[in-house]
Amino acid sequence: MGNTKKPYVIGLDLGGTNSVFGIVDADANIVASTSVKTQGHKDVNDYVDNCCAALQPLIDNVGGIEKIQAMGIGAPNGNYYTGCIEFAANLPWKEQVPLARMFRERLGVPVVLTNDANAAAIGEMTYGVARGMKNFIMITLGTGVGSGIVVNGQLVYGSDGFAGELGHVISVNDGKGRDCGCGRKGCLETYCSATGVARTAKEVITTSDVPTTLREIPVEEITSLDVALAAQAGDKVAQGIFEFTGRMLGEACANFAAFSSPEAFIFFGGLTKAGDLLMEPIRKAYDENVLRIYKGKAEMLVSKLDDAKAAVLGASALGWEIE
Amino acid sequence: MGNTKKPYVIGLDLGGTNSVFGIVDADANIVASTSVKTQGHKDVNDYVDNCCAALQPLIDNVGGIEKIQAMGIGAPNGNYYTGCIEFAANLPWKEQVPLARMFRERLGVPVVLTNDANAAAIGEMTYGVARGMKNFIMITLGTGVGSGIVVNGQLVYGSDGFAGELGHVISVNDGKGRDCGCGRKGCLETYCSATGVARTAKEVITTSDVPTTLREIPVEEITSLDVALAAQAGDKVAQGIFEFTGRMLGEACANFAAFSSPEAFIFFGGLTKAGDLLMEPIRKAYDENVLRIYKGKAEMLVSKLDDAKAAVLGASALGWEIE
Repeated sequence: MGNTKKPYVIGLDLGGTNSVFGIVDADANIVASTSVKTQGHKDVNDYVDNCCAALQPLIDNVGGIEKIQAMGIGAPNGNYYTGCIEFAANLPWKEQVPLARMFRERLGVPVVLTNDANAAAIGEMTYGVARGMKNFIMITLGTGVGSGIVVNGQLVYGSDGFAGELGHVISVNDGKGRDCGCGRKGCLETYCSATGVARTAKEVITTSDVPTTLREIPVEEITSLDVALAAQAGDKVAQGIFEFTGRMLGEACANFAAFSSPEAFIFFGGLTKAGDLLMEPIRKAYDENVLRIYKGKAEMLVSKLDDAKAAVLGASALGWEIE
Repeated sequence: MGNTKKPYVIGLDLGGTNSVFGIVDADANIVASTSVKTQGHKDVNDYVDNCCAALQPLIDNVGGIEKIQAMGIGAPNGNYYTGCIEFAANLPWKEQVPLARMFRERLGVPVVLTNDANAAAIGEMTYGVARGMKNFIMITLGTGVGSGIVVNGQLVYGSDGFAGELGHVISVNDGKGRDCGCGRKGCLETYCSATGVARTAKEVITTSDVPTTLREIPVEEITSLDVALAAQAGDKVAQGIFEFTGRMLGEACANFAAFSSPEAFIFFGGLTKAGDLLMEPIRKAYDENVLRIYKGKAEMLVSKLDDAKAAVLGASALGWEIE
């Protein structure tokens, strides 16, 4: 018989606003998808019930639950070891939620859960630019900065399931770093997330009188997308903001190389839409700052997975990993 | 038959001055040892020949080469993947030296090689305080700062065999960091190695007029041992130097936790002789700086292996790992 795997896995990308489900085949085709609002379910039991009700017609369409190998969930603060979401700030459930077990009991298939950046890393390894790689670091540039680290072909979960929080490495440690939501100062994500880019723009505008088209937008409303559009239209200040952001990322990655000497860093998320405006300073700062033995070894890549699908594909890829 | 392993492995701790050999049994007893000067062999073939000549009586004494399972070598810039020493600054051979192959051809047993800090980590895992641990970080505080990182029970070698150079993570990145032998500025090892402690002492003495017994020593001759002895005798300046060193290490380890969330950091090397003068500020700075989800999780341990034996034991432990 050889490979007795069933033809599909279910992927769940659990976000603060929406929960997106996909039924995915072994060739990374999302053959069916649906979504459920994450907000509005104060009781997590109601949430899981509604999810399963929404999923049932999709499962029936592919031939029933016996065609499903497993389910993978990517969720903020998802812990691979416990299958729980633990104290996620942006979700309606504040306690420790045993989400993997709850879905497993209702669906009758194995369910595995991890955080969203780890799911993205597994997605790249299974379907994306990291296919065939054994050592790489995934950096997700969204509202925050997330990371998934792969060593010897395995996700690094650490002693507690929470390894790989590179967005919370301290990049500015002279006491003058930006305040971070984690309660500390100077974390990488306060500079290099979408939010961080907007903060940089606000700082530049309010502490200088350099001319920039960004001044046409009320300062509190400036987003990273505004900065990217201005930069692409030739605004020097906006370009300088991406230069600064990329340099911070490149310097940080140079330190990360001393940890696991990856063959690639893979960037994913809205900020990567800025293309070379971001990637060129990353590459330059990395090359200028990395220890000589690592120079020229790691590629700086941008994920090629479709944004709208990548999170669900990443979560689904977890499902194929279950033995 | 079950376990068909032979009773002994050979460990080689290859240092800049001496090469120390031990024949080690499965209970970490060094049943025989010898050493050869590393310096003075311009041709690496002569070096290996002399080593094998020195080893032969020891091998004969334990019943011949058929009693030897394998040989493990810990050496500066040793690459596990290639079995080569690559461009080590403190060794007489500047090129890439295929040392594992050379010993294998002469001795007729499998030979594996890695850098000295990785060997120390394997030694702790096999014989020391890391027994049973799957995720820990070994930090060696010697002339430099070395590291060996274990994730999922495996040494992290990375894409090129050179992963785990945490002594070269940039700790001071405002451009005012100390010059490092690697050509960059602000590396952890410029502050937290034995050399770094001596540099701190010189800085304090030459840039202030605080009273300290360290002024009794010619400033260029102050060593980390002098600082430790003065600190233990109650000298406040010397104590402050260890406080500073420990704080730098604790802050660095807080960042390392975000990578692999280890269950322990294990410190080894001369500086650890300072005991709580070093370890207390490490623990305090770690606790103050680590991301909340990691707080209270990682132990800060000092190696209990005998300094004189640890390097040979670590190298020998590599030998047991060969399949």
